Amino acid sequence: MNGAFSSPCAELAARSYVALVHHPVYDKQHQVVSTSVTNLDIHDIARSCCTYGVARYYVVHPVSAQRQLVQRILGYWDDGPGQQQNDFRRTALARVCVQCSMEQTIESIVDERGQQPMVVGTTARLSPSDRVFSAPALRTKLLDGTRPLLLVMGTGWGLTDDFMATVDGVLEPLQGQAPYNHLSVRSATAILLDRLFAEENRT
Amino acid sequence: MNGAFSSPCAELAARSYVALVHHPVYDKQHQVVSTSVTNLDIHDIARSCCTYGVARYYVVHPVSAQRQLVQRILGYWDDGPGQQQNDFRRTALARVCVQCSMEQTIESIVDERGQQPMVVGTTARLSPSDRVFSAPALRTKLLDGTRPLLLVMGTGWGLTDDFMATVDGVLEPLQGQAPYNHLSVRSATAILLDRLFAEENRT
Repeated sequence: MNGAFSSPCAELAARSYVALVHHPVYDKQHQVVSTSVTNLDIHDIARSCCTYGVARYYVVHPVSAQRQLVQRILGYWDDGPGQQQNDFRRTALARVCVQCSMEQTIESIVDERGQQPMVVGTTARLSPSDRVFSAPALRTKLLDGTRPLLLVMGTGWGLTDDFMATVDGVLEPLQGQAPYNHLSVRSATAILLDRLFAEENRT
Repeated sequence: MNGAFSSPCAELAARSYVALVHHPVYDKQHQVVSTSVTNLDIHDIARSCCTYGVARYYVVHPVSAQRQLVQRILGYWDDGPGQQQNDFRRTALARVCVQCSMEQTIESIVDERGQQPMVVGTTARLSPSDRVFSAPALRTKLLDGTRPLLLVMGTGWGLTDDFMATVDGVLEPLQGQAPYNHLSVRSATAILLDRLFAEENRT
């Protein structure tokens, strides 16, 4: 099966999914909220997913008007005025799907793949109970099998503890050289995809 | 000298600089242009630089009105209404400097450090003449010395060939698992900083 792919990581990326979750997430005051859709989250993460060969990028929002906004943005580039303007955006946005919940997102992966994905949360602050994987450890685990990966990114001030209690694993927080760890979700997703799927470029 | 830093990479990051260049870059038709400032380029790259401990992030634009726009955005978060709103942005934006040219940028680093930085360009498409470094090779080279690094990121459709002919080295293009390589400059910068300065997290 791997024969069609240029590397084991390419095969893994092709059965991997990214979800950008707008609810349930925390706001600055640690209240559970639904965040607004951000245009550049759609574009930047779609372009990163396309670069690393990720199967699909789910934008998850419980509010119908916000999902319609995402569809309008996608429509602009798919068959609207943007179509002729800049086709590399269109290529990337073609792998964006809009979903109303994580349950629906997981169901759609199960429908497509015939098995449950390994749902992996991300956080900037670990809980003691988290089953934490480094990116290389997660990659090794997933390469030894055929299970799809669903990498879950939170907007706002991060995924809620209740949600994190439901995931199969947590990626260790990105840590640079400083105590500061406030990467944008766009940057954090790009770095995690690079760590998971581009290890050939490390040496 | 390294004693004050948590690792050799932290010491290297602290003498490293990022420049986001708006001119000279190509547009889609391969014309040399000046691109417009993008608000989220300022924020996202400042947050990535802060996370990885980079000394300073230069936004380089030859047009005075565009430089003023950047200063206005910085002012909003520094001593304007944004100051109370979200202090992690303010922390990151404190290391942003606005410059009118690469010459001025290099001069300001020389003034600060007393030596020429190694100027390293980035590109999605190499020229045969490029002196190419992988991220680990560049890191190893710089760790063996005290020379500052200036990592140059292009907006639009990338840094011009004329500019690239002046640099001391070029980082190998980021390549994922797909022929598609249209990362946003925000994502590409984040990944390169991670590859250069966070190698402890690789294993």
